[in-house]
Amino acid sequence: MAVVEVKLPHHQYEVRIEPGALRSLGGWVRDVAPHAQAALLGDANVMQPHGEAACQSLIEAGYQLTQHAVPPGEDHKTLDQMRGLYDVLLDNRLERRSPVIVLGGGVVGDTVGFVAASYLRGVPFIQCPTTLLAMVDASVGGKVGVNVPQGKNLIGAFWQPHLVVIDTDTLKTLPPRELRCGLAECLKHGIIRDGELFEWIDANLDRINALEPDALVELVRRNVQIKANVVMADEREAGERAHLNFGHTFAHAIEATSGYGVYHHGEAVSLGMVAAMKLAVDTQRVEASLLDQTVQLLDRIGLPTKADSLVATEQLMQSMRMDKKVADGRVRLILPDRMGAVSIVNDTPDEAIEAAWESLRG
Amino acid sequence: MAVVEVKLPHHQYEVRIEPGALRSLGGWVRDVAPHAQAALLGDANVMQPHGEAACQSLIEAGYQLTQHAVPPGEDHKTLDQMRGLYDVLLDNRLERRSPVIVLGGGVVGDTVGFVAASYLRGVPFIQCPTTLLAMVDASVGGKVGVNVPQGKNLIGAFWQPHLVVIDTDTLKTLPPRELRCGLAECLKHGIIRDGELFEWIDANLDRINALEPDALVELVRRNVQIKANVVMADEREAGERAHLNFGHTFAHAIEATSGYGVYHHGEAVSLGMVAAMKLAVDTQRVEASLLDQTVQLLDRIGLPTKADSLVATEQLMQSMRMDKKVADGRVRLILPDRMGAVSIVNDTPDEAIEAAWESLRG
Repeated sequence: MAVVEVKLPHHQYEVRIEPGALRSLGGWVRDVAPHAQAALLGDANVMQPHGEAACQSLIEAGYQLTQHAVPPGEDHKTLDQMRGLYDVLLDNRLERRSPVIVLGGGVVGDTVGFVAASYLRGVPFIQCPTTLLAMVDASVGGKVGVNVPQGKNLIGAFWQPHLVVIDTDTLKTLPPRELRCGLAECLKHGIIRDGELFEWIDANLDRINALEPDALVELVRRNVQIKANVVMADEREAGERAHLNFGHTFAHAIEATSGYGVYHHGEAVSLGMVAAMKLAVDTQRVEASLLDQTVQLLDRIGLPTKADSLVATEQLMQSMRMDKKVADGRVRLILPDRMGAVSIVNDTPDEAIEAAWESLRG
Repeated sequence: MAVVEVKLPHHQYEVRIEPGALRSLGGWVRDVAPHAQAALLGDANVMQPHGEAACQSLIEAGYQLTQHAVPPGEDHKTLDQMRGLYDVLLDNRLERRSPVIVLGGGVVGDTVGFVAASYLRGVPFIQCPTTLLAMVDASVGGKVGVNVPQGKNLIGAFWQPHLVVIDTDTLKTLPPRELRCGLAECLKHGIIRDGELFEWIDANLDRINALEPDALVELVRRNVQIKANVVMADEREAGERAHLNFGHTFAHAIEATSGYGVYHHGEAVSLGMVAAMKLAVDTQRVEASLLDQTVQLLDRIGLPTKADSLVATEQLMQSMRMDKKVADGRVRLILPDRMGAVSIVNDTPDEAIEAAWESLRG
């Protein structure tokens, strides 16, 4: 088993990574959140293949278990959905020390996480991410929340889990498109912090695509460690945690204007990273070879690097200005300094950003 | 000006107490949460007499100010109300570092506090409590939240303010019934931590009722200090913070079964303290004189010590078992050891609790 420790000033927890880990879930939860009751809230699409092992393990560990299937999809990541989940917990009399366990991808994880953060002012939260994206990104760092009509993730909290259990076997049932989306965030980690990870993915892409167990554990472990390092240095995104937004200010504008779902998040991030890299080349921050290298690997993975159906650039610019990561009304971008290092840049001229958008068009 | 410092491991802030303090609000907010924008969300009944001074001070301090009147009352302390407040903040483009200031009593303070805790995953929060109850209780400790049909305060967070500004002049417009309710919590502080405070209230009740400025500042300061000491020792109610629930497990059952509003919270707490004290006498924890002393002062204040219209005792017992402060299904009570000291008691026989309920009946 691979373990990454996340140590924050007020709280620490482990991320345990192993093929078949869900079969050990119950005992591990009992170690960090002993109580008579527990609730497992799982993505309705994931409960079918993977819920049974998880539930059985929790029941064997002695929990009186409340199980509930959560309707998946970004459309359900709402305050209304939360209300239904509160009712499940209230009706089953879950108490302050009862652990709430989520099984599923980032959308369900974020929603259930915010429920756990706010039910009785906060109960123990265990995450079992089942998509590569959720494993390497959402499962570490405590960002939980829901969407409102005005935008994504605008309402939420920082609520650290008591434990994260990553069963890499769940990737066997993940649609290939979603595996590619997860790889977009892995590449991002390489670009912002670890040039060797970028190269490792390049060298091991076939093993990853073949779902070789050792390659998956190694991929997840390396990425979780990077995410954990960033979060440990800056839990509440006062500073360097913003580096994780590399490509994301562009990506959010793409997602917001294309209609949610046209591009999956990792695909929008892929495009966003290309745009940010282009902008960095245009503003003489990095060599053009870095852009080429990035586009090449994204292409190999099968992620989009061109988008011919984007809305007008003015609309995209407008959407960027609405992003919650603006500071005093200025668009804040994360731009590369070299492979493995990025900076926060607040003074990029609008014309340069517009040119980066134009470069994405087919 | 009287100042109480609240120092928590991860956050510290001041409670500033002064007649006319709202006129200084803007500069003080700027010291702790400088930003271009701010929002003042105020109880609609309080905005009229006191909102102008607060708003003017914030505008003079340079804030671009969003003002909004929040419908008051327990019926509006809901997830729906929060949604409307999120819209106010979103529509006015409040950002992550924009302070949200609440002006009003505990109900509005709790609701706006949870909005501040969750808007963009948390923004700076400034409390300006305008009832005695909110000044001595809700304004310190970071408990924020809303009601759901299943019960009060079941959804929420711990979100510490950046600053608490208590303008004791606002007590001049407080209905006398609400002043009495605040005094119930002050007496509670005396009983759980500070026998001298209990005696001081007894000796100074006429000055308090006459709203003498010095007496009010002293009353508020002493009570805020006690609340702060308890919260500093145990922010998340893992242990001694539960002492603050003295009288409250009974009170919540009264409020839940009488229909909210029949008894105001402080009145239910008054009855709850009498019941808890009676139980302590019956179970040989304290002398009967302590009960007499408590009933006498509550009577002098004009708070209820008998209730002839309570529902059947079995219903009250049932309601107690539903309280979120149960641990593993057992009713947890706070009972006095002597004047100024209490303990958490988990093993009170049901019969003794029932007898305490019966003793409250006219």
